[in-house]
Amino acid sequence: MAAPVALVQGASRGLGLQFCKHILKNKLPASVIATCRNPEGAAELQGLVGQHPDRMTVLQLDVNREEEIREAAERVKERFGRLDLMVNSSALLHPSGKGETSLRDVSAHGIIATLTTNTMGPLVMAKYFAPLLQKGNGGFGRQPIDKAKQHSGIIVNITAKVGSIGDNGLGGWYSYRMSKAALNMATKNLSIELGRSRPKVLCVSLHPGTLDSDLSRPYHRNVPEGKLFSTERSVGYLMGIVEALDVEKTGKAYSWDGTQLPW
Amino acid sequence: MAAPVALVQGASRGLGLQFCKHILKNKLPASVIATCRNPEGAAELQGLVGQHPDRMTVLQLDVNREEEIREAAERVKERFGRLDLMVNSSALLHPSGKGETSLRDVSAHGIIATLTTNTMGPLVMAKYFAPLLQKGNGGFGRQPIDKAKQHSGIIVNITAKVGSIGDNGLGGWYSYRMSKAALNMATKNLSIELGRSRPKVLCVSLHPGTLDSDLSRPYHRNVPEGKLFSTERSVGYLMGIVEALDVEKTGKAYSWDGTQLPW
Ligand SMILES: NC(=O)c1ccc[n+]([C@@H]2O[C@H](COP(=O)([O-])OP(=O)(O)OC[C@H]3O[C@@H](n4cnc5c(N)ncnc54)[C@H](OP(=O)(O)O)[C@@H]3O)[C@@H](O)[C@H]2O)c1
Ligand SMILES: NC(=O)c1ccc[n+]([C@@H]2O[C@H](COP(=O)([O-])OP(=O)(O)OC[C@H]3O[C@@H](n4cnc5c(N)ncnc54)[C@H](OP(=O)(O)O)[C@@H]3O)[C@@H](O)[C@H]2O)c1
Repeated sequence: MAAPVALVQGASRGLGLQFCKHILKNKLPASVIATCRNPEGAAELQGLVGQHPDRMTVLQLDVNREEEIREAAERVKERFGRLDLMVNSSALLHPSGKGETSLRDVSAHGIIATLTTNTMGPLVMAKYFAPLLQKGNGGFGRQPIDKAKQHSGIIVNITAKVGSIGDNGLGGWYSYRMSKAALNMATKNLSIELGRSRPKVLCVSLHPGTLDSDLSRPYHRNVPEGKLFSTERSVGYLMGIVEALDVEKTGKAYSWDGTQLPW
Repeated sequence: MAAPVALVQGASRGLGLQFCKHILKNKLPASVIATCRNPEGAAELQGLVGQHPDRMTVLQLDVNREEEIREAAERVKERFGRLDLMVNSSALLHPSGKGETSLRDVSAHGIIATLTTNTMGPLVMAKYFAPLLQKGNGGFGRQPIDKAKQHSGIIVNITAKVGSIGDNGLGGWYSYRMSKAALNMATKNLSIELGRSRPKVLCVSLHPGTLDSDLSRPYHRNVPEGKLFSTERSVGYLMGIVEALDVEKTGKAYSWDGTQLPW
């Protein structure tokens, strides 16, 4: 069977970059398509291309722009004709860099900017890449013996535990919380629509834990000892979940430790 | 005690207009502030002003525009200085008038337009009107004897059952479902932040049932007999829930029959 093909959206740094590294290292001979809005500025990503010129492709894609998503899907279609895994990793906490601590900090601009990147982006990605995932070889996840239950591709939307409405005990971070709750709805909807095709495309939301990355940097000092994960550790957990996915697990949100998150 | 003051946002027609009528009729001598984006075009609303000139105020407010929300809050502050109830009723199903039946129908523009009106609007309303609700007399809902548990105001965000992620069995209507899931997160967050003040402001999401109004008109023929509510019937149920609200019930989503909706 042909080598698996994975696409990581938001791969310039943080978790997305680490997904690329992990797949290159642990999923030989898989190809990785890394997308980011400014490939020239993504030095580490370019380093990976240098190390794995035959397995790495970098495409320019600002997830806020539907036209760029459409064009990137065209490129992937021409070069690969299919996709086995798509990870939507890019997100922002808030355009100011800090989540709203109270209503006073809420603004129309802040809400829309956050919803655009974190919610609209992943869904428009699914629109253009679902046809390629439907042509995938099912190179990630677990395939049941029953052919009717098998999948051709997987969509992973990176969510956050604070995007769980049921788990919300503290409040604050309005825009970010709302963006991830809405993303979780997209995941559920995608799992239903794409679960009807044969073979299926699975879709889950995954919470990576609190990461030693830029997004949460202003808050790292508040994180209890041992609870701040390197992106390497987090991606190890998350890819463990991905490789155990099957149709029974689609349409849900999971934390890094595999426990299901309430909506 | 001074007469209760209610504000209904999105009052030109449909459910919002009916909230105004209901309060004028059943909550004497309450004042009603009705906001809509085009007061001149809202003939029925102007009719209510003619009937109740001393109890009705109409303010221009496009919920997509933060500046207009800020200005309306200034007007209410000047004239009333407080608010007992705010209902966020305005929404759209999709700018095309039809919910997406599949991923093919999804577009960046459609998602953002829907999230702007249905999600951003109600939250920005809360930002500017929460200070007035904190000065309310608690003229709606049920006041416990324990002073620490009493409330000064109530925010009602009109949600939809299809905005429940847990209840979603059919898929489709991506933008609308996502907008209401995100709105439910806003409700939860608001209930937490505004539940800390003394007296409290309560916040709930309410599902009105499927209505004989414009928003769902293309789908009315699919609704089983007896399941399509007039806005009058729906508001009767919803105001029953509002008048029974207390701090124990804040931060949740309820259907018209009082049952709690899963997130
Ligand atoms: N960090 C945490 O503690 C934490 C906790 C829970 C969940 N998460 C989730 O984990 C995921 C990864 O976060 P992270 O920690 O890796 O964040 P990060 O280090 O801040 O990186 C954010 C990434 O998103 C990209 N991005 C932002 N806007 C974009 C756009 N319009 N188009 C394309 N790419 C865009 C950035 O690209 P540029 O380099 O071009 O800016 C960057 O690659 C996110 O979904 C986040 O919500 C993180
Ligand atoms: N209808 C249903 O079957 C149903 C089912 C479940 C939930 N709901 C919810 O019930 C609520 C009321 O819906 P409805 O049936 O009354 O809808 P509707 O009859 O279609 O009326 C929509 C209202 O929203 C207003 N509006 C739209 N965009 C606005 C904006 N940018 N600024 C200010 N106002 C704006 C409209 O004003 P204009 O007159 O200026 O256009 C109109 O007053 C909505 O939240 C809806 O999601 C409805």
